[in-house]
Amino acid sequence: MLNFADKLIDHINKKQNPSIVGLDPRIERIPSFIKNEMLDKYGNSIKAVAKSFIKFNYGIINAVSDIVPAVKPQIAFYEKYGFEGVKCFQETVKYAKSKGLIVVEDAKRNDIGTTASAYSSGHIGKVNKCKGDEVPMFDVDAITINAYLGSDGVKPFIEDIKKYGKGCFILVKTSNISSGELQDKKLIDNLKLSEHVARYVNEWGKDTIGDRGYSSIGAVVGATFSTQVKSLREIMKRSIFLSPGYGAQGASAKDIIPLFNEDGYGALISSSRNIVFAYETSNEYSDDDYIESAHQSALLMKNELNDALKEKNILPW
Amino acid sequence: MLNFADKLIDHINKKQNPSIVGLDPRIERIPSFIKNEMLDKYGNSIKAVAKSFIKFNYGIINAVSDIVPAVKPQIAFYEKYGFEGVKCFQETVKYAKSKGLIVVEDAKRNDIGTTASAYSSGHIGKVNKCKGDEVPMFDVDAITINAYLGSDGVKPFIEDIKKYGKGCFILVKTSNISSGELQDKKLIDNLKLSEHVARYVNEWGKDTIGDRGYSSIGAVVGATFSTQVKSLREIMKRSIFLSPGYGAQGASAKDIIPLFNEDGYGALISSSRNIVFAYETSNEYSDDDYIESAHQSALLMKNELNDALKEKNILPW
Repeated sequence: MLNFADKLIDHINKKQNPSIVGLDPRIERIPSFIKNEMLDKYGNSIKAVAKSFIKFNYGIINAVSDIVPAVKPQIAFYEKYGFEGVKCFQETVKYAKSKGLIVVEDAKRNDIGTTASAYSSGHIGKVNKCKGDEVPMFDVDAITINAYLGSDGVKPFIEDIKKYGKGCFILVKTSNISSGELQDKKLIDNLKLSEHVARYVNEWGKDTIGDRGYSSIGAVVGATFSTQVKSLREIMKRSIFLSPGYGAQGASAKDIIPLFNEDGYGALISSSRNIVFAYETSNEYSDDDYIESAHQSALLMKNELNDALKEKNILPW
Repeated sequence: MLNFADKLIDHINKKQNPSIVGLDPRIERIPSFIKNEMLDKYGNSIKAVAKSFIKFNYGIINAVSDIVPAVKPQIAFYEKYGFEGVKCFQETVKYAKSKGLIVVEDAKRNDIGTTASAYSSGHIGKVNKCKGDEVPMFDVDAITINAYLGSDGVKPFIEDIKKYGKGCFILVKTSNISSGELQDKKLIDNLKLSEHVARYVNEWGKDTIGDRGYSSIGAVVGATFSTQVKSLREIMKRSIFLSPGYGAQGASAKDIIPLFNEDGYGALISSSRNIVFAYETSNEYSDDDYIESAHQSALLMKNELNDALKEKNILPW
């Protein structure tokens, strides 16, 4: 079974692109022609919302599957609509995988013991049925998790990561303004809390390092705080950083350089709104062109990242 | 609209019981007669699991609804089974509310900005449909959240809490052994991280204090670390503590006393396995008696808590 980090790097190499597209549908931003079709078919129901999301997502996945190695559906936007939304999430995951994309579920799940195991088995492992037999459920390739509860909350995921060749990205330093309220707090040993968490991430990852030298236990490190990235990169040399903040949240291609190691690997740069809703912000495109506009935006981002890596002489392909 | 904290205290008074029953179904621990019925009806499918959970939960809810003020379904155990599990979760919430119980969803959700808003609107607020009209979705009374991302992640929930009379419980000091890895770390100002979070919780709660003097922004504080509870109680005088650890995790009725304020309020003591799976651990009961055994265990816990409060002269009824 292929190690997750190896699998991800293979995909990055194949696409020559270390980016990941967020699939975060919002009904008020879905093109009207899609909503109207679903309103005609399903009335003004939650099902119409879920079906609109599916059609929209399939279009985006088709638009980017030849450009990016991975997609990152944020489950909040689906779960919000209850079981119909979760069904749509599961179908989106399945479709993305069928198109050869790696799926990183943004879920930030966290709990302890048997509860953490329940999350893990549902999202990256297998679940037991009435007769005790097991089947995969969400079956994403990797999931984001929050480690505020300590090792008890992380270890059940690590077990499934080893067993099923999956991965996770642990929240270390997030991209939002108030992330410092906890994450930047200095501890008495002079480390920031985020650096303290980073040390755990490095430890937890040691058992999951693949042939390419990277661990399947990655870290969420925002691209918006480039000054802090350097020390986190030092602490977690083997972890792949999943990095939000590019584009809509203000980080430029230059800001993302410190996220990478000198081998040109080690980061997966995320962009959501700038790609999936690109049709809204350009005069060139109408609603009908949302697929083409997503395709062009994903290409543009690929080129910007490649240019930035090339300029620093760390382009690995 | 009634403030959540007021509503919860009304329910606690009515039942003369500050406890909450966790609804955490595991298929391997559901009585065989239920599983066999569902296997006959739905085959060896995920639907059979979800239907087993529903029948089991309805039995437990019927068993405890005249004894406890509230139930706490842990969504991990449902979500694990994908959309069928989430549908079962939604039906469980609806049934518990129809029986006059307050529902606290244990979800430990966390994210920022519009994503945090998506979680909040789905779980405690309202969601927008294709035409922009809004409907409630999970519609639980309160939800647990994780504040590692800071205010950006909490404020969207607080907005809905104010708007819809809902509540939340923020993870401060959890009941598990490894909780100290982050939560007990001393900061340079000599506070523990959990105390630092507690200060935020107290601040965030100030706008949501009801007629009874308690805030709708509660805190998760484990009953297992009674030495730390005192300082957390000091910092968060107005917050209701949702406290796991009683029973299965080793905390006794005596351990829970420091969680309460001197008025005998301020804590909601959670027990899950010891109540819902009580039939497994007693020779008195067979599978068929799971409802009666849950009823008796919930009564026993009520009496233990009342005795402990009475002994300290803080029984409020």
